[in-house]
Amino acid sequence: MASTSVDSQSLEHDLTLAQAAVTKQGDEVRALKASVKEGKAEKAQVDAAIEQLKQLKASLDLKQKEFQSSSGKTSSTNREAFRAVVGEALQRRLFYIPSFQIYGSVAGFYDYGPPGCALKQNITQCWRQHFILEESMLEVECPAVTPEVVLKASGHVDRFTDLMVTDVVTGDCHRADHLLEAALQSLLEGKPKPLSSEEKQEVHNVLATVEELTGEQLGDALQKYGVQAPETGNDISRPFPFNLMFRTSIGPRGDQVGYLRPETAQGIFVNFKQLLYYNGGKLPFAAAQIGQSFRNEIAPRAGLLRVREFTQAEIEHFCNPDAKDHPKFQSVAQEQPLLFSRELQMSAEKLPQAMRLGDAVSQGIIANQTLAYFIGRTYLFLKRIGIDPKRLRFRQHLANEMAHYAEDCWDAEVECSYGWIECVGLADRSAFDLRAHAAKSKQDMSAYEPFPEGPRMADVLVVAADKREIGKTYKRDAKAITEALESLSEEDKACMQADLAAGKACKVTLADIDYPINTSMVQIKQERKKLSGRSFIPSVIEPSFGVGRIIYCMFEHCFDTRKEDEKRTFFHFTPVVAPVKATVFPLLQKPAFIEKAQSVAALLTSAGLSTIIDSSAASIGKRYARTDEIGVPYAVTIDHQTLEDSTVTVRDRDSTTQVRISITNVKQVLPDLMEGRTWASMQQEYPVHASAGDEK
Amino acid sequence: MASTSVDSQSLEHDLTLAQAAVTKQGDEVRALKASVKEGKAEKAQVDAAIEQLKQLKASLDLKQKEFQSSSGKTSSTNREAFRAVVGEALQRRLFYIPSFQIYGSVAGFYDYGPPGCALKQNITQCWRQHFILEESMLEVECPAVTPEVVLKASGHVDRFTDLMVTDVVTGDCHRADHLLEAALQSLLEGKPKPLSSEEKQEVHNVLATVEELTGEQLGDALQKYGVQAPETGNDISRPFPFNLMFRTSIGPRGDQVGYLRPETAQGIFVNFKQLLYYNGGKLPFAAAQIGQSFRNEIAPRAGLLRVREFTQAEIEHFCNPDAKDHPKFQSVAQEQPLLFSRELQMSAEKLPQAMRLGDAVSQGIIANQTLAYFIGRTYLFLKRIGIDPKRLRFRQHLANEMAHYAEDCWDAEVECSYGWIECVGLADRSAFDLRAHAAKSKQDMSAYEPFPEGPRMADVLVVAADKREIGKTYKRDAKAITEALESLSEEDKACMQADLAAGKACKVTLADIDYPINTSMVQIKQERKKLSGRSFIPSVIEPSFGVGRIIYCMFEHCFDTRKEDEKRTFFHFTPVVAPVKATVFPLLQKPAFIEKAQSVAALLTSAGLSTIIDSSAASIGKRYARTDEIGVPYAVTIDHQTLEDSTVTVRDRDSTTQVRISITNVKQVLPDLMEGRTWASMQQEYPVHASAGDEK
Repeated sequence: MASTSVDSQSLEHDLTLAQAAVTKQGDEVRALKASVKEGKAEKAQVDAAIEQLKQLKASLDLKQKEFQSSSGKTSSTNREAFRAVVGEALQRRLFYIPSFQIYGSVAGFYDYGPPGCALKQNITQCWRQHFILEESMLEVECPAVTPEVVLKASGHVDRFTDLMVTDVVTGDCHRADHLLEAALQSLLEGKPKPLSSEEKQEVHNVLATVEELTGEQLGDALQKYGVQAPETGNDISRPFPFNLMFRTSIGPRGDQVGYLRPETAQGIFVNFKQLLYYNGGKLPFAAAQIGQSFRNEIAPRAGLLRVREFTQAEIEHFCNPDAKDHPKFQSVAQEQPLLFSRELQMSAEKLPQAMRLGDAVSQGIIANQTLAYFIGRTYLFLKRIGIDPKRLRFRQHLANEMAHYAEDCWDAEVECSYGWIECVGLADRSAFDLRAHAAKSKQDMSAYEPFPEGPRMADVLVVAADKREIGKTYKRDAKAITEALESLSEEDKACMQADLAAGKACKVTLADIDYPINTSMVQIKQERKKLSGRSFIPSVIEPSFGVGRIIYCMFEHCFDTRKEDEKRTFFHFTPVVAPVKATVFPLLQKPAFIEKAQSVAALLTSAGLSTIIDSSAASIGKRYARTDEIGVPYAVTIDHQTLEDSTVTVRDRDSTTQVRISITNVKQVLPDLMEGRTWASMQQEYPVHASAGDEK
Repeated sequence: MASTSVDSQSLEHDLTLAQAAVTKQGDEVRALKASVKEGKAEKAQVDAAIEQLKQLKASLDLKQKEFQSSSGKTSSTNREAFRAVVGEALQRRLFYIPSFQIYGSVAGFYDYGPPGCALKQNITQCWRQHFILEESMLEVECPAVTPEVVLKASGHVDRFTDLMVTDVVTGDCHRADHLLEAALQSLLEGKPKPLSSEEKQEVHNVLATVEELTGEQLGDALQKYGVQAPETGNDISRPFPFNLMFRTSIGPRGDQVGYLRPETAQGIFVNFKQLLYYNGGKLPFAAAQIGQSFRNEIAPRAGLLRVREFTQAEIEHFCNPDAKDHPKFQSVAQEQPLLFSRELQMSAEKLPQAMRLGDAVSQGIIANQTLAYFIGRTYLFLKRIGIDPKRLRFRQHLANEMAHYAEDCWDAEVECSYGWIECVGLADRSAFDLRAHAAKSKQDMSAYEPFPEGPRMADVLVVAADKREIGKTYKRDAKAITEALESLSEEDKACMQADLAAGKACKVTLADIDYPINTSMVQIKQERKKLSGRSFIPSVIEPSFGVGRIIYCMFEHCFDTRKEDEKRTFFHFTPVVAPVKATVFPLLQKPAFIEKAQSVAALLTSAGLSTIIDSSAASIGKRYARTDEIGVPYAVTIDHQTLEDSTVTVRDRDSTTQVRISITNVKQVLPDLMEGRTWASMQQEYPVHASAGDEK
């Protein structure tokens, strides 16, 4: 690919290579150092390797600057470079690790290493506090392995698919939509030859609708544009649906199909009646589940954003379909998140607007208070854990994006280097899920509510089943059939009444067997009765959180570099999510310093703050840089003065300034800082400590 | 089964039937009540149903008394009755729910309902605090889906099996050992005919060794005793191994086999080098993981104790094989858990003994301090969460129970209605796991430690590879082969040196390809060198916790009934694990009471205590009984006096006594009680409140 001008893509490629070279050389230096200790290598070899590392670093530095000046702040290549730097910072400190690395890894699987794991714990605990405890939700924990019948009812067995094409020679698999998008993008970039403006417009039009194409249409488009398999250039098959669920077999016989759940929600739906009973039969209530879900992606990419196993946190709020107001709505009505309504998406500017949630409901932009309440709570939660609210928008689904049964859907989208990423889905799913399970399981999924104004007279349809007649025909199935007839919904009763009157064939279906019903078996009549309330299948409003995606976006939002030295990276995690709350540093590796450090660390641990001690031989500046890299908000240093007057210095990660306070105060002050005390107030109360050039 | 005498097994059967009848009638009453509200049933029907329920309850009561007087306190049937009562209490309040119940459930899968889920959260958080935070362990989180190669290396693909037989007619599957045990038990009970004392002795002998039989031996024994399939009485197949891992396929091609992990440990082992690096290259350190594991049991039974998906909490402590002392051992050396050593198991009394851990190590009963330290920490943990220490023993594995590589193994066994159940396994696994992954992955799994006393001179084997000669033969593989030769372990070097000298064939294996090596390619010589330290594959000491089993045993240990009314059950959970810390009761359903209750509940929630409000119309006594059932330790009641002087009553679950304190004090006093303040001290400080017969 010869290019006459400086091309930012080739620059980015150079940058990636330079970064890889630095990483490799760094590994080599470490290995050599170990070899010297073991007597397997000479000191001179290490020095030579370090010299080479320095040169590689300098070259990388140069390329980074060149790259930054060549590309605009928001260009996609700049984004990719930013992503590479964040990714390197995260992987180096084991926030995450590609899983099974010693065996060459498997795409779409990641481990959380120690700081990542601690941070994830903090975020799920924070979620639990913010949603489950504050709203008194009913938390459940259900298995990942799920029998086929559950996912047949939910529609996942039949419809949870992506369209796939295979390389007809190698059998390699690709996502059909991704291939088409890449091919169209290439055409727009003038490869293999520039397009006419008419052709360009057409390609643009197709590109805009790729996600809505049927398999047939996608196949035609792939054919039309002559798309071939990437890398091999071989022909590809027509697109066909590939089910994204991991399949397994339950029990030793091999005849019971199971899947790893693709979402945690189904475990809540199948327990609805139990949970309703637990809640004293009263609506509304919400149930929640935090747990692993699984999707066997065709070709995982996009790092932590599209993985095959991930943590979901889902809420199912069950309510009367006619009562979607929320008693606590006023507590969020004044919040002003960026809303990207259907209307704004269709407008010329295509820009989201900050809007009071109260106004959004009163103007009919958000369908109801409950959905808006959860949008507000989600907004507060994401801000609380460190998502930048300016890079967070709530995007309403367009009419053609929504399932037929959904009443309104909004996605919380967060901007990161991959673009705007769906991190939370908030949907009013009407009664779809409970109806589906009621139909499949033949179990009652209704709730009952008394009329708030007391009993009323109403015309109701009453089923009079002739037990003897049914018994004659259906023998021992008669009882079940009679019960099924008597528990028909008002709607079904009306239907059957009309059909019977019209002489049409009627039936009852039990365990997939149809039982014809005729007028000698049943009579359906309207009667005037006193009713105290009504039965209904509740509506479900579902906020569904992708925990890994939120964490990844938060990593990017909290990543920063020191103004004085761009190579010094740090994460300005909020104290609530920071994996470690404080690091204690003995200035010197002497027993007196180390013992003091241990006692201060024990003090902080007992105050509930996760604390580490860094007593390595590196300079204090280097050690500060190291805890900055994992985003520890505060550092406590034991210095010479500590041994004299029992005071320590406390350093603030974000400003890198320090104050001096007594050890007895540390235990109180640090928890205060965690709960929101400002650093400025610390600087007012305690003497500032000059860092004596430690930070360099 | 006609029986002339009162047989406790048939009594138990009656009891089960009576209990089922009560439950069923209770459901019917509830359904009828709902129907009356909806106008579908008459009040008279409800009254009749309630009357019937009362009769059934009275009959159940009678049977329970009869049963209790007929059977000794420790008989197995009594245990089963106890288990039935506990199970009923747990399921009624949704501590757990058989999964997918609306579809008829699937054996071996359970959901945790709201109180179970909260309690499990509390226990894993407590574990995290007790082990991970207090010991600065490195926590990781790895996927459940695991590629085959990892579990091939660990031995699970080849050896993680149970012996199975099938019914030759129906294909039903059974565990071979369970069938044999049941058949032998039957023989001992004199079915079909009494045995001679000689025959009895023989059956006893076989029974004692069932777990150690090979497939061949088990098959012979099944044949000898003419064992047939239960229920059908058909012939059974010979036993064959059935792998207990759930198998799946990763990616769309269908050619990459994956399994659901059977334990969380492997995720830690494959990351060993990364974790060592994270720990600054220093040993010892421990890594830990809490997560789901999966075993496709042949025939799950024993309720929550043998399930197909369960939570494990595993620790892998990596250390120098020559340095298994533990710096914090003294902190547990005085603890005296019941130890059931190999010797005691072989003794005539077969009874465990309380013993100081310090003595157990110094007498060589426990292999090393580190293993003993974790036994001590496990003992403290289990006590802390409510396991009765008198029903907890640490049983050492007999020599024939241990894997060949293990140095010493102890199981924490807890006594419950199923007998003594293994809840925690503590094993010194030597370097087995890391060696297995090093061999399979061809990656270095060693650690390096400097000699504490400084460098020393030593004879070492030095590999001199002739790069040119190797290059001539192996072309582009030469570099990798040279590296492999140079990084041979001392042991392998010695081996190759001897083989080369003896003219034997030598080789290097890379990615499953063998490369022959001869004397022209490599020379191995002994040289005297200055060594600063040594490389070695670390030993692993593994405490592995079955969280679900611990929880179930704890349920049984905390279950209790009121002396004054045996039907009033409660769980005396310790505050740290109780799913809810406090319930707030407005005495009356009036706005003034309810508002006060809400403000008190908010106060407690903000103090970090999970709190519920019970404002139902039931009497205060009934409501107290209801929170007792889910083990809420304290109740706060808003009564008439509250409205006058802002004092409330606080009730202690275990003693059912009450004190009166001001609302302003509640926020301080309840957290104190959670952290160990005694109720007696409350009674001394605050006026006792007479419950005015509320408890009746």
